[in-house]
Amino acid sequence: MDNKDLETLGEYLLELLDTRQIKLFREQLEDMNEHDIASFISQLPRKKIAMVFRLLPKSISADVFANLDVDEQHHIIECITDRELGEIIEELFLDDAVDLLEELPASVVKRVMHTAASETRALINQYLEYPDNSAGSIMTAEFVDLKLDMSVREAFTRIRRIGEDKETIYTCFVVSGDRKLEGVVTVKDMLLSDEDEQIRDIMDTQVIYVTTTEDQEDVSEKFSEYDLLAVPVVDKEHRLVGIVTVDDIIDVLQEEATEDFDKMAGITPTDKPYTRAGVMEIWKSRIPWLMLLMISATFTSLIILHFENALATVAVLAGFIPMLMGTGGNSGSQSSTAVIRSLSLGDIAPRSVLRVLWKELRVAVLCAGSLAVVNYAKMFLIDRLLLGNSQVTPIIALVVSLTLVFTVILAKLVGSTLPLLAEKVGIDPAVMASPLISTLTDAMSLLIYFTVATAILHI
Amino acid sequence: MDNKDLETLGEYLLELLDTRQIKLFREQLEDMNEHDIASFISQLPRKKIAMVFRLLPKSISADVFANLDVDEQHHIIECITDRELGEIIEELFLDDAVDLLEELPASVVKRVMHTAASETRALINQYLEYPDNSAGSIMTAEFVDLKLDMSVREAFTRIRRIGEDKETIYTCFVVSGDRKLEGVVTVKDMLLSDEDEQIRDIMDTQVIYVTTTEDQEDVSEKFSEYDLLAVPVVDKEHRLVGIVTVDDIIDVLQEEATEDFDKMAGITPTDKPYTRAGVMEIWKSRIPWLMLLMISATFTSLIILHFENALATVAVLAGFIPMLMGTGGNSGSQSSTAVIRSLSLGDIAPRSVLRVLWKELRVAVLCAGSLAVVNYAKMFLIDRLLLGNSQVTPIIALVVSLTLVFTVILAKLVGSTLPLLAEKVGIDPAVMASPLISTLTDAMSLLIYFTVATAILHI
Repeated sequence: MDNKDLETLGEYLLELLDTRQIKLFREQLEDMNEHDIASFISQLPRKKIAMVFRLLPKSISADVFANLDVDEQHHIIECITDRELGEIIEELFLDDAVDLLEELPASVVKRVMHTAASETRALINQYLEYPDNSAGSIMTAEFVDLKLDMSVREAFTRIRRIGEDKETIYTCFVVSGDRKLEGVVTVKDMLLSDEDEQIRDIMDTQVIYVTTTEDQEDVSEKFSEYDLLAVPVVDKEHRLVGIVTVDDIIDVLQEEATEDFDKMAGITPTDKPYTRAGVMEIWKSRIPWLMLLMISATFTSLIILHFENALATVAVLAGFIPMLMGTGGNSGSQSSTAVIRSLSLGDIAPRSVLRVLWKELRVAVLCAGSLAVVNYAKMFLIDRLLLGNSQVTPIIALVVSLTLVFTVILAKLVGSTLPLLAEKVGIDPAVMASPLISTLTDAMSLLIYFTVATAILHI
Repeated sequence: MDNKDLETLGEYLLELLDTRQIKLFREQLEDMNEHDIASFISQLPRKKIAMVFRLLPKSISADVFANLDVDEQHHIIECITDRELGEIIEELFLDDAVDLLEELPASVVKRVMHTAASETRALINQYLEYPDNSAGSIMTAEFVDLKLDMSVREAFTRIRRIGEDKETIYTCFVVSGDRKLEGVVTVKDMLLSDEDEQIRDIMDTQVIYVTTTEDQEDVSEKFSEYDLLAVPVVDKEHRLVGIVTVDDIIDVLQEEATEDFDKMAGITPTDKPYTRAGVMEIWKSRIPWLMLLMISATFTSLIILHFENALATVAVLAGFIPMLMGTGGNSGSQSSTAVIRSLSLGDIAPRSVLRVLWKELRVAVLCAGSLAVVNYAKMFLIDRLLLGNSQVTPIIALVVSLTLVFTVILAKLVGSTLPLLAEKVGIDPAVMASPLISTLTDAMSLLIYFTVATAILHI
């Protein structure tokens, strides 16, 4: 359904509510999917949210709940009874329940844990202990496990019996008596096999799996490499403890990309989307880098003040400082962005630093050469002839163009090396992006500029 | 399998090849999955690639082929007979075949089309006509379609019969006599239903679908909103023409993110990963923005030269130009990055421009205030007292700090407004990122600086 239809439907639903046509209202909801119901609920005024939520058919209330934002979940939890809460927690997929608990304030977590069945509680506790962003923290325990000596018929019976509550039934996991992972078998394999065949004979023993402590970024790489729908998660003893499904991986991919965008713009990443984050939170995520980069610009001030006399003698030099710093910064961030993105897609490895440097060097020479030629022509034709600035002599144009050559080449080499080095020593390469590179290239370009100027102009 | 195991296995396979133990070699390959075999093949020297490819068991050669890069695919096509080629094209999923043809040179496309069966050829031609990056261009025609009046048992029989070659069997699509899309039904629904039930009674009629011309970015948004495994693609008459599966969406998400990263760093996006792109290609993708931004820096030169006298009178002012421009640029790109990413995730809509501006204004005031205070203290304590620069007087520190306040606020407002305006008039907001914003804020910060300086210092 597109957004426009949804809006019209939402208005109709509101009207039904206002005129207390509750029966018709519930019938309408039954035809909608959980995501759209959640969208509708989150647009309601606060005091109506819990009321509408309680009107939902029992069969879908947990699914709708899982689709709401944590603020609304929190609000609903505070408005419903312990018993209703307990039922929702049992119905939620374990990974959704764990996500929820990680966001709620401690007092609410306590109440939620209290209402959960003891078995669920134990599982949740176990999950909460996995490190943030690990496979363990995003996995779910709701999978179909099969035994080696089952027939396809028995497997289907098991799927029919326990499949209802599982996050996926299409990939089933074959375990031995001590719960070690032995293989995977898909419903497709089973449908295309004879009903009497044994699972051990049709399963795939070359299983792609991940371990509980593996980073979610590595998990998502496996999904995109091998086109998986679900991947099994094993512990250190190779026992199957959970699965990660492809819908969670889509969220992981978007989260990780957003984190990289933030870091590359000098923003400390937060889990909250922009519209939900408060002004103070946004300020807190942005001010550290701004502050750090502002203070580190002390170096550029020092360089300029050191060459004060040169600037006083040939005043026109100052006019090209912004262009040189800007072009240096842009050249450097092009290289750093390309390298950072390739690293995160697994396209290049940190050990290929020499190959990358060689490639960047050649690109840099091409860029530097073409920029210098165009700049010389531009300074001569536009600045000198068209705008009539007689201070822009051919020799000044030469100084600026030569500086450009060295700056662009150095900026591209620094921009491509820093992220690779960062990855090698275990720092997130995304931190080595535009803002940091620009600050570095600012200082570099000034030093080069004044060195070239003093050498050529003898000042 | 992790990379280390793969390397060891690769060496072993090479040894088998070199010692001509072909039988053992083929047995080894049968145990590996297509992706790993493709990785192995792409590391081989050119002249061995086609030879090894021909050793593959027929059953997996098309799958391995689909996992290779286009360069290697091209090479293999040139080494095999028309008949072998025809077999591979028939075996490929249609979307993979179309992807391949879009990358190959025209002469090779001709040969491939010639070897394909006429039915396949017609389908491929139809697909090649959909606009780039549309749902039509990434969809596949290999889906399971069911009829309204089938029983669950009949449906399973159909899946068993035609399922082998389908990209997914888990979501089946129910069509009427004239191929209009009527509903979807999952294998899970069918497994959990009675075998005698009719498809029309268990199918979901509230279908999430896309149209052939819809942008792939919108398609991927639907996947992440509704947690889908496959989405049906319909034409203008609501006839079912194909499906898009979740594994393709993962590629789309990564492609789109990479494109945004590129654009935001002033790189013209290309489809080629960094390691595969040649030096000239990289140069071509980077030089246009560098050139444009370099030339547009003529304005900053003009501003500085216009205020030449002010700079000559109070020489210390020049020292803080890089800091002011840098901080303005960083403040602006933080805002533009946040807004661009939120737009692409669907977190904010272009019409919320006023709400975003109000939020950014408050964040900007907080950032500007804290930066100004710290800058004043830094100039006084570090520049004046610690470094002993007597030119940095309290009044100069005031000029710089005031400029900082106006610059940061203006930069954040421009940085957040431009992407929203771009989206509104149909330009990709990612273009309004760091490089462009920095060039704008460079000019702005200089104008503010000299205005404040002349007003306060009376120069």
